[in-house]
Amino acid sequence: MMRVILASGSPRRKELLHTIYQDFEILPAKGEEISAARKPEDRVRELACHKAREIYGKETGPVLVIGADTIVVADGCVLGKPKDRDDAHRMLTLLQGNDHSVMTGVCLLWRREDGSTGEDVFFSGTKVSVYPMTGQEVEDYIATGEPMDKAGAYGIQGTFRKYVKGIEGSYNNVVGLPVSRLYHELTRLQLIQAPPGIPGETGEH
Amino acid sequence: MMRVILASGSPRRKELLHTIYQDFEILPAKGEEISAARKPEDRVRELACHKAREIYGKETGPVLVIGADTIVVADGCVLGKPKDRDDAHRMLTLLQGNDHSVMTGVCLLWRREDGSTGEDVFFSGTKVSVYPMTGQEVEDYIATGEPMDKAGAYGIQGTFRKYVKGIEGSYNNVVGLPVSRLYHELTRLQLIQAPPGIPGETGEH
Repeated sequence: MMRVILASGSPRRKELLHTIYQDFEILPAKGEEISAARKPEDRVRELACHKAREIYGKETGPVLVIGADTIVVADGCVLGKPKDRDDAHRMLTLLQGNDHSVMTGVCLLWRREDGSTGEDVFFSGTKVSVYPMTGQEVEDYIATGEPMDKAGAYGIQGTFRKYVKGIEGSYNNVVGLPVSRLYHELTRLQLIQAPPGIPGETGEH
Repeated sequence: MMRVILASGSPRRKELLHTIYQDFEILPAKGEEISAARKPEDRVRELACHKAREIYGKETGPVLVIGADTIVVADGCVLGKPKDRDDAHRMLTLLQGNDHSVMTGVCLLWRREDGSTGEDVFFSGTKVSVYPMTGQEVEDYIATGEPMDKAGAYGIQGTFRKYVKGIEGSYNNVVGLPVSRLYHELTRLQLIQAPPGIPGETGEH
């Protein structure tokens, strides 16, 4: 039986991965945040791989490690997590009344029971359009505390949703993990348990 | 003080409306499900208005009633809630490996404290792309019980999310209430309380 490890401490990624795996472990990578990549899509792939490799390197036996990294790109600026409230204010002022991209890189590293190993890296991008916000709305949102642990200083699934006009692409990618693309890859690579059959309802008949 | 009433029993709409109003009442309309409208966007607007009017007609004093109706349109077929498991199977088979539209109509009816009344009706459409699903995946999803109370036989926020390739438009519109558009309309119509100030953090300084 292959162990599954999520190399991220994000509670949002944990919840999303539960859509795919009932049981997995969480071992957050510290993550080497330095990347020489110029393109944001290369950068998130690279940072996701740093995280996955950090955990994979410590493990023996059959294992699948999932690393992920999310950034926000607005007007050519790459936005990570805000350093403080002023930084959150700067980011939200840039995002309001504007379109931006959210990019998540995912790196899968695995060793099967037969000892064979493999790697799969992909990225998913989503365009997000935000309604114009008043200065008071920006301040009120920062006061909720939601921005501080999130790339781009907002969480699409929280109270910020009333400012999100629309998106193009995967919603869960903005939350932090492109769960449908991940499920697709894991199925293709045969890294997923067969769905449990419901006796009498499904299966061979 | 104007009372706010959501004319829907959907727990998903209730949770979404909490993003806008801290306090509101829930009085589910039975809803007249008959519409002569040909276009789906006219139909959801009309059905949302039936629901709002049913509740508004019973109320006196300052009140805002919010009615909403959601349908799924795939290959020219309008899908409401499935009648039974076979119906859910039919709908999911139509949606898998395909694009469809989710349309939510919203009707606002209000009476202000000065006795003046008003009505605002709008609709929001979102395109949803679903990955191909195996027969087993369709069966397994039906076995979760999630499809039965939802238009189109799926909930985008549940375990079905692993099959949703991407969307174009409002995500919460697919959940059941286009909350950002609604917030925008309510602000424009001055039907919303001013955001609460956080002393020392926001306000006049």
